[in-house]
Amino acid sequence: MSQKILTGDRPTGSLHLGHYVGSLTQRVALQDTSSQTILIADMQGLTDNGHTPAKVSGNILNVLADYLAVGIDPERTVICLQSGLPALAELTMYYANLVTVSRLQRNPTVKAEIAGKQFGASIPAGFLSYPISQAADITAFRADLVPVGDDQLPMIELTNEVVRKVNQVAGSEVLVECRPLLSKVSRLPGVDGKAKMSKSLGNAITLGSDDAEIERAVKKMYTDPNHLRIEDPGSVEGNVVFTYLDAFCPDEALVTRLKEDYQRGGLADSKLKCLLTECLQGLLAPIRTRRARFLSDPAGLMAILRTGTEKARAETEETARKVKAAFGLDFFS
Amino acid sequence: MSQKILTGDRPTGSLHLGHYVGSLTQRVALQDTSSQTILIADMQGLTDNGHTPAKVSGNILNVLADYLAVGIDPERTVICLQSGLPALAELTMYYANLVTVSRLQRNPTVKAEIAGKQFGASIPAGFLSYPISQAADITAFRADLVPVGDDQLPMIELTNEVVRKVNQVAGSEVLVECRPLLSKVSRLPGVDGKAKMSKSLGNAITLGSDDAEIERAVKKMYTDPNHLRIEDPGSVEGNVVFTYLDAFCPDEALVTRLKEDYQRGGLADSKLKCLLTECLQGLLAPIRTRRARFLSDPAGLMAILRTGTEKARAETEETARKVKAAFGLDFFS
Repeated sequence: MSQKILTGDRPTGSLHLGHYVGSLTQRVALQDTSSQTILIADMQGLTDNGHTPAKVSGNILNVLADYLAVGIDPERTVICLQSGLPALAELTMYYANLVTVSRLQRNPTVKAEIAGKQFGASIPAGFLSYPISQAADITAFRADLVPVGDDQLPMIELTNEVVRKVNQVAGSEVLVECRPLLSKVSRLPGVDGKAKMSKSLGNAITLGSDDAEIERAVKKMYTDPNHLRIEDPGSVEGNVVFTYLDAFCPDEALVTRLKEDYQRGGLADSKLKCLLTECLQGLLAPIRTRRARFLSDPAGLMAILRTGTEKARAETEETARKVKAAFGLDFFS
Repeated sequence: MSQKILTGDRPTGSLHLGHYVGSLTQRVALQDTSSQTILIADMQGLTDNGHTPAKVSGNILNVLADYLAVGIDPERTVICLQSGLPALAELTMYYANLVTVSRLQRNPTVKAEIAGKQFGASIPAGFLSYPISQAADITAFRADLVPVGDDQLPMIELTNEVVRKVNQVAGSEVLVECRPLLSKVSRLPGVDGKAKMSKSLGNAITLGSDDAEIERAVKKMYTDPNHLRIEDPGSVEGNVVFTYLDAFCPDEALVTRLKEDYQRGGLADSKLKCLLTECLQGLLAPIRTRRARFLSDPAGLMAILRTGTEKARAETEETARKVKAAFGLDFFS
């Protein structure tokens, strides 16, 4: 157990196949070899939902059920809730004194998100400074490894800047620097071919989807727009159905053959979609069943979350105490 | 006890005569008629001292001793320490989602302070958003009356905006709006005649000053720069010594007579300064003695601060619980 991993999600919707491919399977694998904590970042979810908080509060148990349904085991992975950990808010306040406003405004990830969200001139202060809150999350758990997409590397950089500044103020190594763990698999596109699968874009297949929903989503899926007649040669590159078959069809040899047939001409999109539908239905059926079983017992879910949050509380409070000591303000902690 | 008052200081230096006139005497009077809480705002002190935290931590007990020495009674006034109240950090995080960055950048008080502090492009994120933290302090204690200088009215305005937004999100009156309590006395100038007495400007007489320090400070004090010979008529307007005599000489009739003599000509600055020195020495001698006695017992001071902070903790946590409930995130509080 040499490495300490922190990862998590903003609970602003149920998780989907993009999460499954991009992070959930990795987390299931990592829990055997690492000390892993998953933070359900509900307070961060509020940074762009301050006026619509039900979007956050209403999804916490959904996300937890998604975790459990894919095989994340609360006995081996600590699953905890950000709003139940006041030390994270305290750390954010201390770190905010060491990060300049212009540093936040230059953050490429935040810049891109602000542009995408069309806040206009109304960027919430909490949104601009959420990277500081992430630095608090990562350092509070003394994580040395943080799974991220490459668009999130600036967050790791900012976190390590904070770590160095706190250690400089303290005159000792109070906090540890972290490294990014970049996902080996490339990001799963939406069913519409857009780069990112996202519930808010309406191009996602959530983990709770039933057979009919899966079938409808695959039917809408983009293939090769120039593949008009079955006998024409089709293109595999940028063909969303093949991207999904690569990700989800366990029979790689079959997919290779199908690609050859498709490029040669004579293979109908409908056949590919039928195969993909079956693959996804097969993958999601047991997940959907487990998910529904967990969701039918909210008290059981809450007990799991409470246990994890209590474990996390001791850990985060210990870090907050050390950071407050670095600033000479550990009178009552 | 109809009114609930929150007031406080950033512990970035010992308190001085400016505080005495502007707020301390008012606080002593208010503790008989109000439910008063005084917050030693150490975390706010860090917002522009993140890299020099000893300036904050080293002054907490000084400020507490100043309070007690002037007659603030911890049995009647709750005196508490901001860093000992994690609920204040939590509230700040929730409120930050309801306040825009541009709203903070437009705040006239913060704008003036940023200009004065010469941060340049390096404004700490914590400094820009300290009005949100003040809103957290005020609302956490459900204060309906907040003593402020007129330069701080924008803070009250921002606090009440937050109150209305939280109540709107909650659909009920979770938080109460507050009113400013403007000081009746005008601000005491520095001994150099500058508008504001401030330890960092080197123009302050601290409450712990001894007789010799008081004498030296009064000797340096600005009078009428055109009053070159004793027999010349002198001006009272803008004459710092008379401003101080108005504030500190208990014999108002005497000060009125002296003003007449001075304006007529024939009254030496040195005579006025001698009288002022005696007044201030008489005022500060018992305060200095009490202050030194309190400071000789740090454990006793800490016990007072601990008791106040524990009382405050229950109160602030109750407010945080209600605000978290408003956002639907009171799972574990």
